[in-house]
Amino acid sequence: MLITHATILTMNAQREIIEDGAIAIKDNRIIGVDKTSALVERYPLEEQLDATDKLIIPGLIDTHVHLAQAMIRGCADDMELLHWLCDRVWVLQGNYTEDDGYVSARLCIGEMLKSGTTTFLESMLAHRYGFDGIARAVQESGIRACLAGIVMDIGTYATQENSMHPGMIESRETSLLGVLDMHSKWEGAANDRIHVWFGPRTPGGVTSELYREMSELARQKNMGITMHLAEVEADKAFMQEKFGLSPVLYADSVGLLGPRSVMVHMVWLNDTDIAKLVETGTHVSHNPSSNSKLASGVCKVPQLLAQGVNVALGCDGGPSNNDYDMIREMKLAAIIHKAVSLNPVLIPAETVLEMATINGARALGLEHEIGSLETGKKADLVLIDFERLHTTPSINPVSTLVYAATGGEVDTVLVDGQIVVQQGELVTMKEDEIIAQANKHAQQVYRRAGIHIKPKWPIR
Amino acid sequence: MLITHATILTMNAQREIIEDGAIAIKDNRIIGVDKTSALVERYPLEEQLDATDKLIIPGLIDTHVHLAQAMIRGCADDMELLHWLCDRVWVLQGNYTEDDGYVSARLCIGEMLKSGTTTFLESMLAHRYGFDGIARAVQESGIRACLAGIVMDIGTYATQENSMHPGMIESRETSLLGVLDMHSKWEGAANDRIHVWFGPRTPGGVTSELYREMSELARQKNMGITMHLAEVEADKAFMQEKFGLSPVLYADSVGLLGPRSVMVHMVWLNDTDIAKLVETGTHVSHNPSSNSKLASGVCKVPQLLAQGVNVALGCDGGPSNNDYDMIREMKLAAIIHKAVSLNPVLIPAETVLEMATINGARALGLEHEIGSLETGKKADLVLIDFERLHTTPSINPVSTLVYAATGGEVDTVLVDGQIVVQQGELVTMKEDEIIAQANKHAQQVYRRAGIHIKPKWPIR
Repeated sequence: MLITHATILTMNAQREIIEDGAIAIKDNRIIGVDKTSALVERYPLEEQLDATDKLIIPGLIDTHVHLAQAMIRGCADDMELLHWLCDRVWVLQGNYTEDDGYVSARLCIGEMLKSGTTTFLESMLAHRYGFDGIARAVQESGIRACLAGIVMDIGTYATQENSMHPGMIESRETSLLGVLDMHSKWEGAANDRIHVWFGPRTPGGVTSELYREMSELARQKNMGITMHLAEVEADKAFMQEKFGLSPVLYADSVGLLGPRSVMVHMVWLNDTDIAKLVETGTHVSHNPSSNSKLASGVCKVPQLLAQGVNVALGCDGGPSNNDYDMIREMKLAAIIHKAVSLNPVLIPAETVLEMATINGARALGLEHEIGSLETGKKADLVLIDFERLHTTPSINPVSTLVYAATGGEVDTVLVDGQIVVQQGELVTMKEDEIIAQANKHAQQVYRRAGIHIKPKWPIR
Repeated sequence: MLITHATILTMNAQREIIEDGAIAIKDNRIIGVDKTSALVERYPLEEQLDATDKLIIPGLIDTHVHLAQAMIRGCADDMELLHWLCDRVWVLQGNYTEDDGYVSARLCIGEMLKSGTTTFLESMLAHRYGFDGIARAVQESGIRACLAGIVMDIGTYATQENSMHPGMIESRETSLLGVLDMHSKWEGAANDRIHVWFGPRTPGGVTSELYREMSELARQKNMGITMHLAEVEADKAFMQEKFGLSPVLYADSVGLLGPRSVMVHMVWLNDTDIAKLVETGTHVSHNPSSNSKLASGVCKVPQLLAQGVNVALGCDGGPSNNDYDMIREMKLAAIIHKAVSLNPVLIPAETVLEMATINGARALGLEHEIGSLETGKKADLVLIDFERLHTTPSINPVSTLVYAATGGEVDTVLVDGQIVVQQGELVTMKEDEIIAQANKHAQQVYRRAGIHIKPKWPIR
């Protein structure tokens, strides 16, 4: 296939932009990125997809997603975090069946694909959501994913009595060994679109012994690790009291840091913590919508980048964002640090686009496969249509993409060389069906949980 | 006309939400808001517009807009404010013809209507953009507007040599009297959709004498005043040095504050300033995207609201936001104060929806005409379609609207009883034509200004 006549943000090492550019694809790989004239000469017989007036970017990479939370979007707005978590999110999630997990995964994946996300890192995937079903949803949809299965040996999934699984305790056996099972079953599946990672709970949910054992296994098997860390200020006090260490230094002490680790949120860091991230090559997933809505604070992204930490971007989940649109997330990432630092040149549009593409690929250990449009890489790419009022005029595609656009302008999406969104419509899934199923299953989950969300205003 | 079977956020005094609700419209007024069954019984012969599964909200009110800046969207990203203003925005605006002003106004109005804004307050409308043409654009499009003409007697429009109007100096005669001319010509035009206000420049562009004369005239003629105030920290130092007063107290000393005044940005306020706003009944237009992108800081909205100041919402302009989508602006207004105050219950979704509707109407002195869906008010309303993946499930329409939706979900818009957007398409203007004209005129403005914006990355 040959996609022609587009403006291409290659995100290659020189960050070249190609005007009237083309991309040649064979099977699941990019075999050429050049001016249209050059590629048409090289592949004269190839079928052409005309992308005149469209922008092509590498598929966006969301480095922090909770698939199961798409179906409980809006369940807990404007609430204190403990109330948010203990009375809403955990209770609802405690009432998921494997079918609910599958339905929510499809809703979330559909939203991501339609808004230009081609790869995601799922965090803390609990086995009761049905790992197999979720991996199947990834396989069927055509998206690329790193699925991090939950690891924990302290506490329960859901502490509430109105859970389907009251007092259900995970252990080393069920969680750690469960993830290893899934790794042997799914790693590299779907033409290498699926990877299996460890997704341990934050300190408080895992013993130091289990962290150490898991980290050692991850190194042996070259598996990634992703974990929430230093998200809220209280995390600092908790770790100081329990271990006499900052969250980052504790994580290091049990082997959690390193070049295959993506630590998420990372709001409450000091200079020593940042130096430790640099030293260990640990990646950070920045989630500005979630950090803002949950009032966690503002991650020190300018300092992290200045010190050389690889910072990627993530949307988090349905109750904390409440969307999975990486283009909208880029805008917030570009402007919030300017606001709190009173410095308008911090985190320019170019930097957030790097965070959402090539930095994300590095964080997932996939920088040789995805994250830029280069010969030899996998064909994960997004065509965007700026022929809209709110993206007119577009005098600099990077600016238009980051500051004016939303995921609604995504026209066509390819993952692994396969068209998964065409003219703004899902190809591999039926949107109507996903919506109907999600509404039905959401109702069932709320009913089982005994939670009835009402608007705060009177209803007539 | 009868719109039936919708969920209606009335924004009336009780903030009632009507399920399976209907709205009856005669000419340009709402004559009934009730359950569908009740209104169908009352108006059995009326033609029905079925709005099943749609949400109806009052038309959104954007209290700070620069129409002329739509056409220079993205001209100055990630820059220091003085560079942004003096080397880009002012130079480009200094090269506008009246045709450019008309074309940019149509681009901006089209974007606003399509994303659910039915009324806006234009700030500092310069005469060289063609007041008559812009009023005509408002008239033709069907939108409702308060057009605040620029008032100034110090400095020039454009200090750069590459302006079409180098050294063009406004005076009391051209600006103040020019606005009065426009007031006598356009006030109440287009079936009362157009109002003319004073839009003075910030202190530094206007003498105290002219502020006083203008304020007195505004009171005599019951005209509104809108002005940028206390936007950046440097404003405080400037006013302290020049007048020994804070920006707010200086504004008060020359008669600028009061219940017909909308002061914009208002980032740098102390407790005395806030007390003065309460005492005078002055309204505040909060512009979180602009304040963030330009690194002005974060307005103390929670404190303003707690003290009883009426706070409305605004998108500002193409180089500072860079969109005019009030639904996206609502989300940022809801989450940024949580982030900086570390308090997740501040500025809930309900509060930002008030800011974008009824508070906006109060700010414009139009609270008896617009801002809520009530019998007797003008029929300015928006139908929104939540049958999308990213708005599923919608268990609370206020949450879905503020936290998950964008202007892209707007289906139908009525202003003054007239349908101006239908199934997401403009009715009163041709979108293709607006885009083509805006692209052409933008090119001409950039060429005349000698400004060529290039991406920062190399182009092949």
